[in-house]
Amino acid sequence: MRNENYASRNLTMLVDFYELTMANGYFASGIKDAVAYFDLFFRSTPDSGGFAVMAGVEQMIEYLEGLHFTSEDIEFLRGKGFNEDFLAYLADFEFVCDIWAVPEGTPVFPGEPIVTVRGPVIQAQFIETMLLLCINHQSLIATKANRIARAAQGRAIMEFGARRAHSFDAAVYGARAAYIGGCAGSSCTIAEQLSGVPALGTMAHSWIQMFDSELEAFCAYAREYPDKCSLLVDTYNTLKSGIPNAVEAFNREVLPKGFRPESVRIDSGDIAYISRKVRKMLDEAGFPDCAIVASNALDEYIIRDMLNQGAKVDTFGVGERLITSASSPVFGGVYKLSAVERDGKIEPKIKISENVTKITMPCFKKVWRLFDRDTGKAIADLITIAGEEIDENEPYELFDPDYTWKRKTVKNFVARPLLHQIFKAGKCIYDRPGLDDIKAYCSQQVDTLWEEVLRFENPHNYYVDLSQALWDEKNRMIDKLKYRDT
Amino acid sequence: MRNENYASRNLTMLVDFYELTMANGYFASGIKDAVAYFDLFFRSTPDSGGFAVMAGVEQMIEYLEGLHFTSEDIEFLRGKGFNEDFLAYLADFEFVCDIWAVPEGTPVFPGEPIVTVRGPVIQAQFIETMLLLCINHQSLIATKANRIARAAQGRAIMEFGARRAHSFDAAVYGARAAYIGGCAGSSCTIAEQLSGVPALGTMAHSWIQMFDSELEAFCAYAREYPDKCSLLVDTYNTLKSGIPNAVEAFNREVLPKGFRPESVRIDSGDIAYISRKVRKMLDEAGFPDCAIVASNALDEYIIRDMLNQGAKVDTFGVGERLITSASSPVFGGVYKLSAVERDGKIEPKIKISENVTKITMPCFKKVWRLFDRDTGKAIADLITIAGEEIDENEPYELFDPDYTWKRKTVKNFVARPLLHQIFKAGKCIYDRPGLDDIKAYCSQQVDTLWEEVLRFENPHNYYVDLSQALWDEKNRMIDKLKYRDT
Repeated sequence: MRNENYASRNLTMLVDFYELTMANGYFASGIKDAVAYFDLFFRSTPDSGGFAVMAGVEQMIEYLEGLHFTSEDIEFLRGKGFNEDFLAYLADFEFVCDIWAVPEGTPVFPGEPIVTVRGPVIQAQFIETMLLLCINHQSLIATKANRIARAAQGRAIMEFGARRAHSFDAAVYGARAAYIGGCAGSSCTIAEQLSGVPALGTMAHSWIQMFDSELEAFCAYAREYPDKCSLLVDTYNTLKSGIPNAVEAFNREVLPKGFRPESVRIDSGDIAYISRKVRKMLDEAGFPDCAIVASNALDEYIIRDMLNQGAKVDTFGVGERLITSASSPVFGGVYKLSAVERDGKIEPKIKISENVTKITMPCFKKVWRLFDRDTGKAIADLITIAGEEIDENEPYELFDPDYTWKRKTVKNFVARPLLHQIFKAGKCIYDRPGLDDIKAYCSQQVDTLWEEVLRFENPHNYYVDLSQALWDEKNRMIDKLKYRDT
Repeated sequence: MRNENYASRNLTMLVDFYELTMANGYFASGIKDAVAYFDLFFRSTPDSGGFAVMAGVEQMIEYLEGLHFTSEDIEFLRGKGFNEDFLAYLADFEFVCDIWAVPEGTPVFPGEPIVTVRGPVIQAQFIETMLLLCINHQSLIATKANRIARAAQGRAIMEFGARRAHSFDAAVYGARAAYIGGCAGSSCTIAEQLSGVPALGTMAHSWIQMFDSELEAFCAYAREYPDKCSLLVDTYNTLKSGIPNAVEAFNREVLPKGFRPESVRIDSGDIAYISRKVRKMLDEAGFPDCAIVASNALDEYIIRDMLNQGAKVDTFGVGERLITSASSPVFGGVYKLSAVERDGKIEPKIKISENVTKITMPCFKKVWRLFDRDTGKAIADLITIAGEEIDENEPYELFDPDYTWKRKTVKNFVARPLLHQIFKAGKCIYDRPGLDDIKAYCSQQVDTLWEEVLRFENPHNYYVDLSQALWDEKNRMIDKLKYRDT
């Protein structure tokens, strides 16, 4: 399935230049092999939603597996003034880090590590830009797609945004992420070739205009595609011209060949109103099984409102507002140092800030999701120091890390680790799921969230709590580091 | 300069699937070689600004020059059910279209063709998705970068957004477009390797945390880069720790080697306030030439406000809000049929719509920009039918195409065609300017616009008028086509 020409690109120099100045600095300072731990996490959810959908792990793995410096890269860096011994190190670069990541399709929450990297600081630092790029982009689109798919209440969503994507990869991997989040397919053909996302599409208005009449255009299309006839009916006037001509074309070119027409598409006008009229006209013409597809600047809010108004739409084509996540186009993942090893011991690191939301979480950590044994619903996520165990047979007391008097004891739960090891000493050890499995897993995992978390506006704040040991360690470090204004 | 591995990707299947169903349909209907004219234009400007900056032509040319169907592509399309004769046509595909485009860096306005394609409909239709992708993305970012650069009033803007870009190409070509729009450089290293955008960067907070103290981290960096020492000063506390330690490191490691420190960077806190304090501290410590760099969720609005409040910042690092054009992340370019040739004559085409802003502009057209001979300022753009001439020695009467009683006679003007032919019979005939020339051209062309058009909010509506002949033709066609509700 893979188009090697596309996937085998050398993206090593797709790196923030400061990763290189730092790498060279670690090299020159003699600390390049100091073992460091970095966490990738995000601080808030796009559209202020209740959760995000993890995506982009596959492309992150592809990048890391191919990571090397070509002679062209080395030459380029020589021209930027780097030293020969550092360049020699890069020429022989061999990736040796350990990496843990949350599987694609998993609902994730602000503040918890969704990727953790352990390895020589010169390497663990270098991969920052690309890890963030992969996860930030695809998680953004998967999250948006999931919102839009949920708004459609079981109706199919087709991703139609390639032309408004932020360049080529945004179309390609955006289609992939949208499929994970819940879309049924994409207009972007290469996304099927590369990733197996079903590619879909029929005609533009220009098809209609190329013929002397709308009816002629419809008949020409129906003759060529009688078995999957779908017609765009709004070029001139949907109700007065488009639908009557479509019905005529169905009767002339589809039925006699033993097929039923597939759908009509409406791309303008008041879709709630027009779709009801269209439904009635199609039903009366003997085509109650002909679906109605709607497109035109849709998103989860408009789809929800249209359905509330009784729109008779079976499939939505969603373009620019999905492929750019237009109402919230940034997924703010960050990558922060959490610990270093010194004499074989893990020493936690923290960055404090006047902005308390920017204080980082120290320690090499583990993330658990607690599910209710009876309902299967997710109760809370719990971040512990790596090595801490959770006894599922004992009640566990959760507490709010900011308002520690807010406490809740959970019983009868299962605790599942969220982070899976995907690289060990630089080699991928992850059994990568197929895209359809990821999509199914996403749907199933979103179903473990309570309705209150799924709400589009003002969702319930899902608990992401710290173990007592982690909370103690973090607050000990803040106390030690905080500036005493004396 | 070019990284062939990156630029030589096969993107032929990066196409909306409906371009393929239509191509096959044109083929089957026997009209594949009917000569069609398509215009690429946009309906509104991002951020409701006064103009947009054209960009993406270079990547569009690269795509078109490399356009071919590999055997892998043909095999894939066979799997999608296309006919053998159509596949044979694709296997021997040779691009033969003529293309006109507005040069990169040019200010452009809603409603005017910025790319025009003439050629066999099967080809002119097929390239729609990629033309839109290239122009929509880069024009979006170049436009945003130009706004941000203008807000900085001559101070440098560095594009820092790679990690929040919508996947790989959005970082790479976003950096290119940002440079065209006015940025001084980018953090994205590969953008220098591929396009010559200067790559810049120093250190992250993790660099500071890797050492036992901030002072030690600063000294290690200064020892390695005494000639370009720039320090990130907000890891612990900018005023109480960062600046005193930076001054100490400058004195210990930079001055003794005969250099002056370059800059300090602030990435958090109230930058208007902190930068004034930092300026005073650096001046008093003997470093009035040490620049201050500010980053942290900036855009044109925040930069304008910070400067109004007397922020002492010399360079701004702008990340996610530039690379995603966060406040307006969609450039809504569209691609519409405007004419077909029949018996050697050009026959105009129009798409009417209940939404009047969606009515298309018929005819094969030319766009002129009228400049005042004395001031050099742009007066208006004028769209004519191709073949119409403008006599610069005669007064020309412009009129508002919607409110035709609003008229203005211009004299003493120069009329320059905006669209340049870049492909002739499928071959690129364009002498492509270098990136620095494009950037300089952009700056110079933006200077031809009146202040009122440059305003961030509620800018003056620059005139984009139609010639009398084009206006007559358009209205004749609307009259003929409009639905008579009898």
